[in-house]
Amino acid sequence: MITKKEFNEACAEALQMIADAGIVLTLEDREKITAADFGLSNLRKEGIQILTMFETDRIAGKILVLFPNQTEPEHWHPPVGNDPGKEEIIRAISGDLYFYIPGEDTLDKGFIVDGKSDCYTMRHEVDLKPGDQLVLPSGTKHWFQAGPAGAVMYSFSTKVRDTLDQFTDPNIIRETKIVA
Amino acid sequence: MITKKEFNEACAEALQMIADAGIVLTLEDREKITAADFGLSNLRKEGIQILTMFETDRIAGKILVLFPNQTEPEHWHPPVGNDPGKEEIIRAISGDLYFYIPGEDTLDKGFIVDGKSDCYTMRHEVDLKPGDQLVLPSGTKHWFQAGPAGAVMYSFSTKVRDTLDQFTDPNIIRETKIVA
Repeated sequence: MITKKEFNEACAEALQMIADAGIVLTLEDREKITAADFGLSNLRKEGIQILTMFETDRIAGKILVLFPNQTEPEHWHPPVGNDPGKEEIIRAISGDLYFYIPGEDTLDKGFIVDGKSDCYTMRHEVDLKPGDQLVLPSGTKHWFQAGPAGAVMYSFSTKVRDTLDQFTDPNIIRETKIVA
Repeated sequence: MITKKEFNEACAEALQMIADAGIVLTLEDREKITAADFGLSNLRKEGIQILTMFETDRIAGKILVLFPNQTEPEHWHPPVGNDPGKEEIIRAISGDLYFYIPGEDTLDKGFIVDGKSDCYTMRHEVDLKPGDQLVLPSGTKHWFQAGPAGAVMYSFSTKVRDTLDQFTDPNIIRETKIVA
């Protein structure tokens, strides 16, 4: 859980980072910003800020913001019925962004969250500079982290089913609880 | 058809407009720019410049550029087998952009291409300012036009099948022929 104050501050800071990245947002878009702590109650360590630009039954586009050294926990998008699972394309817009996917251990610029080695098992590092993109086929296990400058990126995907995402960390709860 | 010189100039100009809109492109992305004249041989009147950022079997993301007063001909994305047809989301990035979709005739800021009233039948105008977005469900007949400043926009969609697009203008050929 996070406090309402912490949530509001995170949202305001994320909107500022999006503006600094040169993205023009309407007032309607700005109201869509949110923050997720994955139930771990340490947003700035493991968490993310999300602005859903559009989401239909077939396609979605989001702006994702990571604060400096903030980590999005390892997860994957499982198949659902006839759908092989969410396919996602990341495009880095600004800052320092490291993705971790299946492959040889090349972890160099990022770090494993303290004491959580078991929760971050992918160690193949992809360093995304502004303008770089990464396609994550359905089911690809991944986590990502910002460097010291934080990071702003686009995430485009097929149908979103966030509540069905699978996480390596058994303590994760996808819904963020905001307390007064 | 268009000449190679005309094609190259259009591509260079479009890349400059994308850069001016604040979008960072890698060298790899820059090489993907192209121009389409729809077989009408008058690119700057009826045509468009396209940079495909990503295209998989399920999802695609493009940057579209219109020069000042350039018009993309009226078309729609038909159903194919079990697919209800391409669903598309437009997000305006910079410039003046007018979309025309089904609905009451509100055409005001744009114009019908000279002598081609029969080829532009949708007259409901949606004025997209930078940051605005428009969802085009499968099968929606639409055309669009830039104002005096030109326009840069994103197009995100489900699976692309450009060669199956249907156009109102019977003279259109989807493939652009480039001559020396």
